[in-house]
Amino acid sequence: MTTCSAPGKVYLFGEHAVVYGEPAVPCAIERRARVTAEKRSDAGLRVNATDLSLDGFTVEYGDGDGPPNVDAPRSLVEDGMSYVEEAVTQARDAAGDPEAGFEVTIESDIPLGAGLGSSAAVTTALIDAATRELGTPLAPREIADRAFRAEYEVQDGQASRADTFCSAMGGAVRVEGDDCRTVDAAELPFVIGFDGGAGDTGQLVAGVRRLREEYGFAATTVESIGALVRSGERALADRDLSELGRLMDVNHGLLSALGVSSRTLDDMVWAAREGGALGAKLTGAGGGGCIVALDEGDGARTALSYAPACQEAFRAELATEGVRVEDP
Amino acid sequence: MTTCSAPGKVYLFGEHAVVYGEPAVPCAIERRARVTAEKRSDAGLRVNATDLSLDGFTVEYGDGDGPPNVDAPRSLVEDGMSYVEEAVTQARDAAGDPEAGFEVTIESDIPLGAGLGSSAAVTTALIDAATRELGTPLAPREIADRAFRAEYEVQDGQASRADTFCSAMGGAVRVEGDDCRTVDAAELPFVIGFDGGAGDTGQLVAGVRRLREEYGFAATTVESIGALVRSGERALADRDLSELGRLMDVNHGLLSALGVSSRTLDDMVWAAREGGALGAKLTGAGGGGCIVALDEGDGARTALSYAPACQEAFRAELATEGVRVEDP
Repeated sequence: MTTCSAPGKVYLFGEHAVVYGEPAVPCAIERRARVTAEKRSDAGLRVNATDLSLDGFTVEYGDGDGPPNVDAPRSLVEDGMSYVEEAVTQARDAAGDPEAGFEVTIESDIPLGAGLGSSAAVTTALIDAATRELGTPLAPREIADRAFRAEYEVQDGQASRADTFCSAMGGAVRVEGDDCRTVDAAELPFVIGFDGGAGDTGQLVAGVRRLREEYGFAATTVESIGALVRSGERALADRDLSELGRLMDVNHGLLSALGVSSRTLDDMVWAAREGGALGAKLTGAGGGGCIVALDEGDGARTALSYAPACQEAFRAELATEGVRVEDP
Repeated sequence: MTTCSAPGKVYLFGEHAVVYGEPAVPCAIERRARVTAEKRSDAGLRVNATDLSLDGFTVEYGDGDGPPNVDAPRSLVEDGMSYVEEAVTQARDAAGDPEAGFEVTIESDIPLGAGLGSSAAVTTALIDAATRELGTPLAPREIADRAFRAEYEVQDGQASRADTFCSAMGGAVRVEGDDCRTVDAAELPFVIGFDGGAGDTGQLVAGVRRLREEYGFAATTVESIGALVRSGERALADRDLSELGRLMDVNHGLLSALGVSSRTLDDMVWAAREGGALGAKLTGAGGGGCIVALDEGDGARTALSYAPACQEAFRAELATEGVRVEDP
């Protein structure tokens, strides 16, 4: 039995623009998915997921052809199980053991479907745990790559390398096209607000694409985000938290201009700022979901916890470690 | 006795960027200041202002050197009276009658200090009424020019030609640098939400200046607003209200990126959009004050009237007429 964990992530800067080749800076956060894999004597796969949402679920796949025995809402299971299956496929492939079966237990304190990279964290931790269980541990970069391939399969080619790279490597990451690298960063006192909802990533990305194709100034706005990210990289290197906050505020406005904010996201951004955050922005695809703020004190979290739009507010420091083995 | 009225204005597109030579489109709105001027037999000036705020005020200037007799809070009077004095100076100058005295009565249904151009409307209407009273009526363009000079004096050289041009000429206006011209426009079903407050224009303009000087991407954001305005001009010519609304939404985001929105402005913008507006944005300097939405139905106004952030919500169609004579 092997347990591994991997962190979720927020975008400090650059979501959406990254689709068009601009750099972005996602950061791993101290909210983790923990996955335990135990090799079975047969080729079956049994998945036990708790804390993935308010209700856990269990799915049992036989090694035959029958449908899995499911004890959870179907859509949630379909979403979650696709990642588990693809991660197991990657682990089997890496170990050269296509018949390996597993008992898998998943726990996560990353809100599901909130844009915090819960699927990447689960996929990454599972690949690490399963390959270790098969006696063929992989280097983190290889785990990142295989986790990306798993997400790529599940998401019909729409996966971002950044999510899985963040989960596998930890820290602050610079992504530009297919190139991901960790960058030196100070401690980043992130505070996250979650509105309990989620935007439709596909629709949001398509909306930005249409806007960008139709209007030169929207294409320019995407480029402005790229330029802002480059300023953000310098602020990160200088450990200048005030500057990072200021740039986060501007980044949020530019994302609003691209049409991907929402009433609840704006509400939370203002609550965090009024609570004393150095800056705040939506993180991820937008349309709902999470904001990330930078605050060394407790004001932003407190303000968020009182904001009607906010369902959950919590601290999540920069996670300097990526995927790692845990005590079971 | 002569009564003239002049409309207030909103910015359909382009505030702040206009400071850097980009075009902007302010529009006169059907909210007016009405000013009655009656020539006195002496050089005295007595001003009676009602409805300029919740409380009216009266100021009596003697023709001697003593301080005026004031019945109102001092700061409100100082603000309002400077415009009246400079407008009278312009009227005296235009008529070649430096000793002309007036009994002036001001009524306005434009909220004061809300960024809706109440001072420009009062100044414009007063210059028209006073010059007529002196038997030297001016053409609207000349009134616009003299009203600008009056505002320029009061505001220490920080006045915009657009406000007074809008009030004098009416309609939709294109301003670029010192060049103002009315442009052809469809009926524009504006809805306005006012949070009861006001930002500090000087600070907001200075904030944008600093941001623009410090960051290339902020300068680019200013240019993007200019490009958006040019798209807006085409939509205006095409009478494409949906397109205008869409561009207003983007314009609001770009203004947010420049740091001039506020929690209440964002609240009102979302309330208007959720109420069915085709688009919504802050209007004027920002930091508080008013938003303008485009809505043919009554949904946006209703939604705004229920929004906690909104103190006053009202319709204000495009005013096709500028300054004009009214029945007393």
